[in-house]
Amino acid sequence: MSIYEQIEKPTLLLDAERARGNIRRMAEKARREQVRFRPHFKTHQSAEVGEWFRPEGVTAITVSSVDMASYFAHSGWDDITIAFSVNLRQMRAIRELATQIHLEVLVEAGEAVSALQENLAAPVEVWIKVDTGAGRTGLAWQDFDGIAGLAKQISRCSKLHLRGMLTHAGHTYHAKSPDEARRLFAESVSRMVDLRDGLQASGLGKVEVSVGDTPGCSLSEHFGDVDEIRPGNFIFFDAEQYSWGSCTAEEIAVAVACPVVAKHAERGEAVIYGGAIHLSKEWMDYNGRMSYGLVALPPQGAPGSRWGAPLAGAYVDRLSQEHGLVHLEAEDLGRLRIGELICVLPVHSCLTVQVLGEYLTLEGHRVGTMNK
Amino acid sequence: MSIYEQIEKPTLLLDAERARGNIRRMAEKARREQVRFRPHFKTHQSAEVGEWFRPEGVTAITVSSVDMASYFAHSGWDDITIAFSVNLRQMRAIRELATQIHLEVLVEAGEAVSALQENLAAPVEVWIKVDTGAGRTGLAWQDFDGIAGLAKQISRCSKLHLRGMLTHAGHTYHAKSPDEARRLFAESVSRMVDLRDGLQASGLGKVEVSVGDTPGCSLSEHFGDVDEIRPGNFIFFDAEQYSWGSCTAEEIAVAVACPVVAKHAERGEAVIYGGAIHLSKEWMDYNGRMSYGLVALPPQGAPGSRWGAPLAGAYVDRLSQEHGLVHLEAEDLGRLRIGELICVLPVHSCLTVQVLGEYLTLEGHRVGTMNK
Repeated sequence: MSIYEQIEKPTLLLDAERARGNIRRMAEKARREQVRFRPHFKTHQSAEVGEWFRPEGVTAITVSSVDMASYFAHSGWDDITIAFSVNLRQMRAIRELATQIHLEVLVEAGEAVSALQENLAAPVEVWIKVDTGAGRTGLAWQDFDGIAGLAKQISRCSKLHLRGMLTHAGHTYHAKSPDEARRLFAESVSRMVDLRDGLQASGLGKVEVSVGDTPGCSLSEHFGDVDEIRPGNFIFFDAEQYSWGSCTAEEIAVAVACPVVAKHAERGEAVIYGGAIHLSKEWMDYNGRMSYGLVALPPQGAPGSRWGAPLAGAYVDRLSQEHGLVHLEAEDLGRLRIGELICVLPVHSCLTVQVLGEYLTLEGHRVGTMNK
Repeated sequence: MSIYEQIEKPTLLLDAERARGNIRRMAEKARREQVRFRPHFKTHQSAEVGEWFRPEGVTAITVSSVDMASYFAHSGWDDITIAFSVNLRQMRAIRELATQIHLEVLVEAGEAVSALQENLAAPVEVWIKVDTGAGRTGLAWQDFDGIAGLAKQISRCSKLHLRGMLTHAGHTYHAKSPDEARRLFAESVSRMVDLRDGLQASGLGKVEVSVGDTPGCSLSEHFGDVDEIRPGNFIFFDAEQYSWGSCTAEEIAVAVACPVVAKHAERGEAVIYGGAIHLSKEWMDYNGRMSYGLVALPPQGAPGSRWGAPLAGAYVDRLSQEHGLVHLEAEDLGRLRIGELICVLPVHSCLTVQVLGEYLTLEGHRVGTMNK
């Protein structure tokens, strides 16, 4: 039975060959650039997909929560960075993990450093979170004294080892072009390298630099003088990355197959079973309007067939809890019948994976995540 | 141990007393107005919370998917409307459900009517989905001929019984004021009643009217000449409903307790562990900017203590996958310490319940949903 016939409700399709290709290209670039590749697993959240990184020599990973660290530790990963500023309320779980695996954590406040030193049984490696322009969190890159002060506090703690400084240049996601993303990435790297040189000059020993946004790592040929990259989204990419040139349509490795339940030809729309609880409510700009995804024809042939290229002029215009309103050009809408499937290329693959919690590969194999 | 001490990570708090009060008030109004109260269970998605409706005499419910119908059928509900246009790809499950419980389904296309007649073993009641102005889906209220044609098609089917017409006046959610919501609700009811009178005059027998948005049902004293109401969100309400007067702050029955992981006094922000995967990416207008929730102090006393009133000038300004950026007034931010909790009143409680999947009552009791 083709997967087309098998699908009854909104289903997260995974093109494993594309995902493995995306992994391979990033791993090759990291090897060529001689940086450690510590991929972020928050995008796929799957023990099975995680295994696809091992043939590329990946032994160290990044996660975004203590729970995700526990899940992947349980799946055999023993070198994990939790790239989220330490949550003091989960100190018990952090303490336990640190006795089981090589654990690296992120701090940006003296309180967190003190709490780690006080509560841990086994030592951990510590990264200082630096904000190089994203404006989310971390010590500001201009605040050398603050960063140096925190580094010194860490270096005085018997249970902590200062590994280096870590940043997420998340503002590259809002770039308008590949050139802008490359420029922001290079600027972020350069700020980190200057800080590192300053810290090392102040006698703190070896200090590493870890960077890691998908647009910067995908689009830049060179990573500059960094020690580690941590991209995550690149394994699947998504409509948002595609929309401004961070990836090609042929690199997008996930799509949500959704049943068509109604058609409204007079307004050029199909209604799909596929809403906010299947796609997430993440939106992107599409020719000046908010859109919740691009649209493609579903895989219809033998197992392994792919979904089509993004349909011209088609986008998800509105979402409620279970409904999606899809705008289609008249000819495409005319061909579409109630009960058929269409594919939505999600705006933000990480969030779509999170809400659906399970994949179906193009070969018809179900793949779980930590959420299902 | 107080629930304040118990919480380690983003946790969906449920004020059971408020939720039961919200249920009681809606049930009383329905009794007074002599309409059937068929609450929508897509908001809470919980067998345990569902039981709170029984003391109010509720015996019939509404759900938004076939899976949700199966879940609640399994929990002892035997009169269920799936208020989502029939998904032809789930005909097998619909057929099975129809043999187990009293099932009511929604159609808006002749294809769906034919498919039901062809595939069902036991009969179902059928509602025609009418669009009274929301612009989502359903036959347009102006299209009397289309509606009458579909009604006649249904009445010729041996396995289908035409119950009536159903609408969701979802545009009341975008009302700017209670008066506007009341006006839109009354307009929607009046359009449905006119259609019903027309259908009955054309010899179709008894045709019922079902309506069901929370703003309309909460704010209107009278429901007009309808047979059934199906509100759902009213059990919890949320920040969006509160923001324009569809409920009071004291009626909001869910909040997400989130640990504070960093503070940025220079920009008036706290960083919380609580992002798009905990709150959903639903946004609302807050003084002209996009906001992802309002903010309150957490319950800190003995079990049963409540979270506080919405803090003046405080809102969730940005969300990424796991991070929330919360704007607070200087005094509130000054008092807050890393490792403490704050509560986010979510923009859209239905979606927040969906992503978190489990409640913690103020008394410290965990309550599951169909998703966990």
